[in-house]
Amino acid sequence: MAQKPSIPKGTRDFGPVEMAGRNYIFDTIRSVFRKYGYSPLETPAMENLSTLLGKYGEEGDKLLFKILNSGDAFAGVDLSLQGNSNALALNVCEKGLRYDLTVPFARYVVQHQNELVFPFKRYQIQPVWRADRPQKGRYREFYQCDVDVIGSRSLLNELELVQIADEVFGKLGINVCIKINNRKVLSGLAEAIGHPDKLTDLTVAIDKIEKVGLDAVKAELRERGIDEKGISVVEPVLLLKGSAEEKLDAIRTVLKDSSTGMKGVAELEELIGLIGTAGIRQQVEIDLSLARGLNYYTGAIFEVKALDFAIGSICGGGRYDDLTGIFGLPDMSGVGISFGADRIYDVLSGLDKFPKDAIEGTKVLFSNMGPQEAAYSLPVMRELRAAGINCEIYPDNVKLKKQFDYAAKKGIPYLAIVGGDEMARGTVSLKNLATGEQQTVGKEEMAGVLK
Amino acid sequence: MAQKPSIPKGTRDFGPVEMAGRNYIFDTIRSVFRKYGYSPLETPAMENLSTLLGKYGEEGDKLLFKILNSGDAFAGVDLSLQGNSNALALNVCEKGLRYDLTVPFARYVVQHQNELVFPFKRYQIQPVWRADRPQKGRYREFYQCDVDVIGSRSLLNELELVQIADEVFGKLGINVCIKINNRKVLSGLAEAIGHPDKLTDLTVAIDKIEKVGLDAVKAELRERGIDEKGISVVEPVLLLKGSAEEKLDAIRTVLKDSSTGMKGVAELEELIGLIGTAGIRQQVEIDLSLARGLNYYTGAIFEVKALDFAIGSICGGGRYDDLTGIFGLPDMSGVGISFGADRIYDVLSGLDKFPKDAIEGTKVLFSNMGPQEAAYSLPVMRELRAAGINCEIYPDNVKLKKQFDYAAKKGIPYLAIVGGDEMARGTVSLKNLATGEQQTVGKEEMAGVLK
Repeated sequence: MAQKPSIPKGTRDFGPVEMAGRNYIFDTIRSVFRKYGYSPLETPAMENLSTLLGKYGEEGDKLLFKILNSGDAFAGVDLSLQGNSNALALNVCEKGLRYDLTVPFARYVVQHQNELVFPFKRYQIQPVWRADRPQKGRYREFYQCDVDVIGSRSLLNELELVQIADEVFGKLGINVCIKINNRKVLSGLAEAIGHPDKLTDLTVAIDKIEKVGLDAVKAELRERGIDEKGISVVEPVLLLKGSAEEKLDAIRTVLKDSSTGMKGVAELEELIGLIGTAGIRQQVEIDLSLARGLNYYTGAIFEVKALDFAIGSICGGGRYDDLTGIFGLPDMSGVGISFGADRIYDVLSGLDKFPKDAIEGTKVLFSNMGPQEAAYSLPVMRELRAAGINCEIYPDNVKLKKQFDYAAKKGIPYLAIVGGDEMARGTVSLKNLATGEQQTVGKEEMAGVLK
Repeated sequence: MAQKPSIPKGTRDFGPVEMAGRNYIFDTIRSVFRKYGYSPLETPAMENLSTLLGKYGEEGDKLLFKILNSGDAFAGVDLSLQGNSNALALNVCEKGLRYDLTVPFARYVVQHQNELVFPFKRYQIQPVWRADRPQKGRYREFYQCDVDVIGSRSLLNELELVQIADEVFGKLGINVCIKINNRKVLSGLAEAIGHPDKLTDLTVAIDKIEKVGLDAVKAELRERGIDEKGISVVEPVLLLKGSAEEKLDAIRTVLKDSSTGMKGVAELEELIGLIGTAGIRQQVEIDLSLARGLNYYTGAIFEVKALDFAIGSICGGGRYDDLTGIFGLPDMSGVGISFGADRIYDVLSGLDKFPKDAIEGTKVLFSNMGPQEAAYSLPVMRELRAAGINCEIYPDNVKLKKQFDYAAKKGIPYLAIVGGDEMARGTVSLKNLATGEQQTVGKEEMAGVLK
């Protein structure tokens, strides 16, 4: 094979530097999830196609990666079959790669309902796959970091997710605004404009206000069949400014005749009250234009935006009342949020906020001047490792220049040089590669010096 | 959907308890890899089929999970095509799931050869997929934990891998025997019995000695066309007992006329010498019957067996001289080992060696007696979390019995009870759920008491 090998478009290799950054993000998120009592779950990469199909809309079905039945199953199947492509796919494929972590979570809860303790709090950090057209920032394989609690309607759960977002971004050093809305408020608004049937049209249009501005949203509302009277009700809601209390007062007036809407306002108010008692440090804001794409949300909706870096939302989620119903377990209300690891990586990288020690790399490279020097170094390295210091010896006895280069390229801060003199005196020459300083250290003292 | 959902055969969900055990294993392995200067790498789940096909033999090709080309690519392809199943697969599939971590590693090294620092030391902990017939202990999705160094022929690399195995199993508390052999010794043995062409027959037969015993191995050697004279050369080698030095002396006599064999003996001797200086704590043994299945090994071969638990090898690997040649980069020698997470899990579980605190679960559950009590508890919990203590509040105001049950089932050791009395006095009643003891603690003192 003369041609250099490559990987499928839309997929990525993560080398040492990217991995260090990604692990830093995942470890931070995971540690916060645990602090709030969420337990880890992992589900298989492959799910039965019957589990996946029909859960993400027609478009979503097309974006599923399907796995060919293995071995002999392939023979004897009439592959020339025409018609519905799902039926065709099911003939030769029974499995697909997971498209998100939510449907596998719902499947898991239903399958294991008799073993689980409810409310069930789980987090899940795994890759998902989508046969999307690859483009900048959109991949066919990417990680999701989901945290959900299912089996409780209490708004303390919503609060907990806000606390988690607050703490994760605080720890990562990213200033954010946590935006909150409630799907019931949006339903109420659709009622208030005389179009309870046009909830989707309404939300699709107003969701874009930050990107396209008020006039474009009004034009789209008109196109979607909402009359001027309705628009005149929506407009002031979109322009609301001020404190959470002021916004709630204003929206209460607009929605006073919608019981669903008023329920939404009451939920928002209770959540804002809880947030006030919990010592949240990041900005929290009611944003009545926040709709989020997915139709299964029924209560609170969340979205987190970075304040100092221009990028889409870096975290989002909401309350869903019937996620497990699709698998035969009705009336399980849950709420969850998902962190976007790729975007968070871009923010940290763009703002240069990765801690310098995120790469838990080698602290000291032992030079290799020959077999006797190596034999002298091995027990010294053993002591360093016992003291928790990452170290390695250059495996080949080559020119010191080459060994220096290796340390420099790998970002190793110290070089330990062991030659005849050092061996005779029971010492090591320790060179700080950043400053060029060199000192002679007794071999027993090295761990203390490097700590 | 009335039927309970399920997952594809041969795959598994890992719930909170399994995840805790698995994370403990992965974290331990990872921390040791880092201590020796290995950097993390992750490659995509999907590789181009051209990368995977032909790398695992004909049987391996059949066990690849192939991914159907997405969307429209499916239409218009003549699926009724007969003949070679790979050609057929390539028509509708261009991608497959990775089968191991070695081929993607080789592909990565060749693809990124100009950016990498050699010797390149990487570890990789990711799932792989094989369309094997599922059976007890054999899964279609399982994790591999590989550590390799490529671009150096020094036996210090082999030593490092022995040190890593020694330290990993030491940390995990598993007593093991690290068995070592050398592929060149086996080649020499094939020469010594007058059948240099029968290396594979020889190794396949003698590899089974532990399972089937000497007589069955001799019978198989006969079947495979090795004559009595040859068998009389092999037999004493298989029966060798004693120290490494004694074994080396004996095998040196047998292999004296094979230059390859003597090279192997010299390598083994050097490695044993290095191991002697490095302070290895676990048993290390030369095992001349050790062959390992894979044909690409060219030097040292390793296998690790648990001493106190009956199970196959829990770690293994070896030196390969031309792994990247298949992708157009010749002469890159490397050596690596792979840890079997599933078997290690079974050993730890069977020997009850998982540490009790492997589950980093909730330390204290705050009872929920109503909204005021919850508002009182929230800042207390905030302080606990700031002190690194995992805690949660039961989200719903239900009977205390139900909240107790939740804590018990989730293995939470403490319950914090907050009612009118506690709120009036600025305290919390802290109940140890294992002993039943209850004490009243000032809300500021909780972190200190729970630490």
